[in-house]
Amino acid sequence: TQQFDFTNHSHRRLNPLTNTYVLCSPHRSKRPWQGAREEVKKMALPEYDPKCYLCPGNIRATGDVNPKFESTYIFTNDYPAVKLEQPEYIEEEQEDTLKGRLLKTEGVRGKCFVICFSPNHNLTIPIMSIPELTKVVSTWQKLYQEVQHEAINGSAPYKYLQIFENKGFAMGCSNPHPHGQAWCLDVIPTEVDRELENMGKYHRQHHSHLLGDYVKLELAEKERVVLENDSFVVVVPYWALWPFETLLISKEHLTSTNDFTDKHKSDLALILKKLTTKYDNLFNTSFPYSMGIHQAPLQCSEEVKNNSWFHMHFYPPLLRSATVKKFCVGFEMLGEPQRDLTSEQAAARLIELSGDKHFNDL
Amino acid sequence: TQQFDFTNHSHRRLNPLTNTYVLCSPHRSKRPWQGAREEVKKMALPEYDPKCYLCPGNIRATGDVNPKFESTYIFTNDYPAVKLEQPEYIEEEQEDTLKGRLLKTEGVRGKCFVICFSPNHNLTIPIMSIPELTKVVSTWQKLYQEVQHEAINGSAPYKYLQIFENKGFAMGCSNPHPHGQAWCLDVIPTEVDRELENMGKYHRQHHSHLLGDYVKLELAEKERVVLENDSFVVVVPYWALWPFETLLISKEHLTSTNDFTDKHKSDLALILKKLTTKYDNLFNTSFPYSMGIHQAPLQCSEEVKNNSWFHMHFYPPLLRSATVKKFCVGFEMLGEPQRDLTSEQAAARLIELSGDKHFNDL
Ligand SMILES: O=P(O)(O)O[C@H]1O[C@H](CO)[C@@H](O)[C@H](O)[C@H]1O
Ligand SMILES: O=P(O)(O)O[C@H]1O[C@H](CO)[C@@H](O)[C@H](O)[C@H]1O
Repeated sequence: TQQFDFTNHSHRRLNPLTNTYVLCSPHRSKRPWQGAREEVKKMALPEYDPKCYLCPGNIRATGDVNPKFESTYIFTNDYPAVKLEQPEYIEEEQEDTLKGRLLKTEGVRGKCFVICFSPNHNLTIPIMSIPELTKVVSTWQKLYQEVQHEAINGSAPYKYLQIFENKGFAMGCSNPHPHGQAWCLDVIPTEVDRELENMGKYHRQHHSHLLGDYVKLELAEKERVVLENDSFVVVVPYWALWPFETLLISKEHLTSTNDFTDKHKSDLALILKKLTTKYDNLFNTSFPYSMGIHQAPLQCSEEVKNNSWFHMHFYPPLLRSATVKKFCVGFEMLGEPQRDLTSEQAAARLIELSGDKHFNDL
Repeated sequence: TQQFDFTNHSHRRLNPLTNTYVLCSPHRSKRPWQGAREEVKKMALPEYDPKCYLCPGNIRATGDVNPKFESTYIFTNDYPAVKLEQPEYIEEEQEDTLKGRLLKTEGVRGKCFVICFSPNHNLTIPIMSIPELTKVVSTWQKLYQEVQHEAINGSAPYKYLQIFENKGFAMGCSNPHPHGQAWCLDVIPTEVDRELENMGKYHRQHHSHLLGDYVKLELAEKERVVLENDSFVVVVPYWALWPFETLLISKEHLTSTNDFTDKHKSDLALILKKLTTKYDNLFNTSFPYSMGIHQAPLQCSEEVKNNSWFHMHFYPPLLRSATVKKFCVGFEMLGEPQRDLTSEQAAARLIELSGDKHFNDL
């Protein structure tokens, strides 16, 4: 009888962090693509753009003026998704009315930050130097410390700090000046909450950490390991949804950037540079993605803190080339996430690419 | 003290079908948009395109020839995400190994169909006539009956039929010939499974149907009701994620298209035409979306069948104009879905638009 072949037969893989499945249809990558293919151009943005809201010395949309910053610069978002100044939401409906049962609402307060990685309008992460990138990591660490301090002393109601970057127009970024964001909320966002719940369940069941065990397993199997240094490992997770999705995990148990030493900071800078260089080299383009950090909530029990494990998700949309992306649409929205190549196939592609030499320098 | 104002203060709303939150930041719609705005063109596709894989009489990518079909035409997808012919997947790992715990896999078999709505290359749903649209509804009904028959008599292992349409390039559709798809699987997809679970819980707790109660509530409140006829109602759900997302629900308890009378079929055709006409009129464009049907599994217990309630989700990406869409990216992927206007604001816009006169005819 025929053997089950992961590169030819459809199957679903369980994401243990979210406890949901991804449908993998590897033979689908064989179908012809009729969509457009564009010529690849070298990136050519100026170092300074007088019309950019994020360049040093420029006037922002609201009229505020950026200082002449010389390294990573953080400020409060002019159009934040959440604010601190708003009245409390008080639920008036009783659970025994239809409204009380079906229309459930919570007020959400918080603060949103923009983090310019560098004064330089055209310096993306793969092009930045290690000292410059270490500054970015330090900014993430310092912000976490500061908002946690406010949370603990009661001056702000924060529970979670979500740090992320939307890179590229394909990922809804409207300004090419390299920057990330951080949204600080008085609730734990759904996705984080779900991961914490599943990591907690795993810990109670197996008396070890889900991501700690996963690092061990991947380092033993090697097949999906894209990068590794003393402190971190990057894999295409077994349950990846996006074609070239990766998961960056600390090797030791670090619950948040609070646990980072200087060595961790420069190791994170190093591996971020290598990973994003590989990404750019994959399709010879400034590779779009959304990425972000998952770590311990700002205020939580010792148990929840202990179940947390520092990691970063990279969700890039491209599938076949600089211009052909994966659409997570009909079946994915109504049924289940679906992918067209295996994680192992994606990892093999990423492994063979250089993480040291950027295509723009070749 | 200040009152909590839904159009000005951030809050999250619970989606009771999936038991997850959506963050609503209504003041964010006030931020200026710097992205591109394009001139709106009238649609001008030919009735027949000799290069289209889906037009009658043409040769498909695989070499098969389409018959000269004269109304709705269904055939097996040439590049299906799932197939019937593949060996069974047998799990070899034990739960007490890291691999057994962390790398969980299931084989998935099934069949994928393409449904050409009409022979006409340029006839989208809002432009089709009621008899033509009724043919589409009948095709959905007939397909459900046929695959259910195969499932029950044991000739195929089907559990769920996911019918959907990806419309427009923005939704990953690569062929403008109006068509939908149907993927028939031997598993219940995640999203459907989650809805069935939550509808089941609701039923056990309240001895009534979640969607039945919701229809009652919305018809009483009226604020979010976009369309209504004898058999169906369309609302912008309280917990909508996409800017102009809608939910179409049967008024009576219909578990699947099996329960449809001729009156239900023509009422569905009518309300689909009106809804998609409103959508096209919103930004004077052929409005992109992914939409699909959720109904009872093909094989399930009486209890699960009874918890099911026929409904359709419409997920359109556009936010501000024919060319500016909502990006569900960084925070949405890593944290929680987020929207920039309230459901009530979106409903008000849709309610005032004509569902009878298409902008192309004005
Ligand atoms: O099947 P199609 O039309 O080739 O492909 C489209 O719909 C599928 C089902 O939602 C998605 O998986 C694809 O990413 C999308 O491009
Ligand atoms: O905050 P920005 O950069 O204006 O907006 C971008 O990121 C946000 C957070 O992921 C999203 O909600 C927006 O849809 C996206 O365009």
